[in-house]
Amino acid sequence: MHDLVFLERDPFSPIRYIYRVSGILYCGKSKYQEIQVFESPDFGKMLVLDGVVQLTERDEFFYHEMLAHVILHAHPNPRTVLIIGGGDGGTLREVLKHNSVERVQLVEIDRQVIETSKRFFHELAGGFSDPRVHVKCTDGTRYVRQARGPFDVVIVDSTDPVGYGKRLFIDQFFADILSILNETGMFVIQTESLHFHRKFVADVQIRLGRLFKIVELYCVSLATYPGNWWTFSIASTKYPVAAQNRKQEVITKYYDEEIHKKAFVPSSLRRKLLDCNLDW
Amino acid sequence: MHDLVFLERDPFSPIRYIYRVSGILYCGKSKYQEIQVFESPDFGKMLVLDGVVQLTERDEFFYHEMLAHVILHAHPNPRTVLIIGGGDGGTLREVLKHNSVERVQLVEIDRQVIETSKRFFHELAGGFSDPRVHVKCTDGTRYVRQARGPFDVVIVDSTDPVGYGKRLFIDQFFADILSILNETGMFVIQTESLHFHRKFVADVQIRLGRLFKIVELYCVSLATYPGNWWTFSIASTKYPVAAQNRKQEVITKYYDEEIHKKAFVPSSLRRKLLDCNLDW
Repeated sequence: MHDLVFLERDPFSPIRYIYRVSGILYCGKSKYQEIQVFESPDFGKMLVLDGVVQLTERDEFFYHEMLAHVILHAHPNPRTVLIIGGGDGGTLREVLKHNSVERVQLVEIDRQVIETSKRFFHELAGGFSDPRVHVKCTDGTRYVRQARGPFDVVIVDSTDPVGYGKRLFIDQFFADILSILNETGMFVIQTESLHFHRKFVADVQIRLGRLFKIVELYCVSLATYPGNWWTFSIASTKYPVAAQNRKQEVITKYYDEEIHKKAFVPSSLRRKLLDCNLDW
Repeated sequence: MHDLVFLERDPFSPIRYIYRVSGILYCGKSKYQEIQVFESPDFGKMLVLDGVVQLTERDEFFYHEMLAHVILHAHPNPRTVLIIGGGDGGTLREVLKHNSVERVQLVEIDRQVIETSKRFFHELAGGFSDPRVHVKCTDGTRYVRQARGPFDVVIVDSTDPVGYGKRLFIDQFFADILSILNETGMFVIQTESLHFHRKFVADVQIRLGRLFKIVELYCVSLATYPGNWWTFSIASTKYPVAAQNRKQEVITKYYDEEIHKKAFVPSSLRRKLLDCNLDW
């Protein structure tokens, strides 16, 4: 195929991204969304949901490592982990690297995302066969309302906050997560770009601050998510999170102790963000 | 105008960017390049050279502050500054905020870039009328070969290393800069994206390391430069650069003491980069 391109339709981005495409591996539609898998000469295989790039083989590790390892190294002994979303398996793969982890509950609304990843993304989906993993295909907001827990760590690996995704950013959902964390529990959620979605980031930080003792914000630069200055909101009921609270034993491509520390948004900038006092 | 878009033709990026355009303010051609100014509903006015976005009104301060203020706060007393390139005036504006600065020599090859900025980008071009500023429109590589100096600080604010821009990244140019720095001089140059141009970044760092006592790498996330994890290579003949060496007095939107420190690439990551030992 020549001259074939994919024009992303990110509903949140003022810049539209175009990728070269060398093959169309899958186009389908689940009950919840369009699912596409493209082959890119630049990024390897790409998973696209509702027209938005969710991951590329080449750079997915930045996102998945930063989502999983910051919280799992901030927590002194994570044994039980709940992942909401993350049906591609990338976050699960990183979580399972931790020997302390005894049980992972993954709750993905769309079974077809998991099936698509198992079929096309073997580097990501290997964790689904790990005996520590339990998968439930249901609405994550309903799950946390009814789950007994408690969990040491909850990770929300969601799509953008549009359509169904919106429900994973409301107060009730955050309160339900707090209620299923144990007394040293921690929670992390991806919260979009500091370039393009600053008010959204500030809003989530403020609302989490009403529930949790400790709330922080950290970032990684992602080439394939428009806005790219990607944020993660992390909340803790007891221990601080901005540095490792235990020694790193897992092997990573990007994440390490120094990156953990440097990823946290400087306190001056975070203060200005929360005060809506950024002069941009 | 409706449905008008600008399709960027960045020669280095595997992702092409599309911007909405609400007005075409200028299209011209100088001896060196195509020059365009667009109005964007999302980013304000945009300066485009040879089809590549150089700056947008909305986010130019990230780049210009980080290019100018890291080196000017690392240097304990910067009085004479040479800027190579930077014809839009953004870097100049930031440099002139420092009261210690007595003289700035700006060397831009393309007079029409300066004229275009004076006409359309008043927020950037104000510095050209400052009595401390001396402008020479000539080839920067020739200038540094013949200049007497010495300078406290040299800043290279270049386009991408293609065509003419390539000459601003060769060993001879770096050596000529070293020769016009005084005994406590410092040098900084933009060196593209750590996502998309990793080998290029490593190459510049290694070659600077052969000339300068201290070489470091720092970053900022830029939404409008493809690859976005933007690097600056900074070199010093005497003083360390990774923290402020004097108190900040200038007013900035983004840059501050904490951001200065956190911007520097973690030593572990820099080591892996230079050893070509990044597993990506």
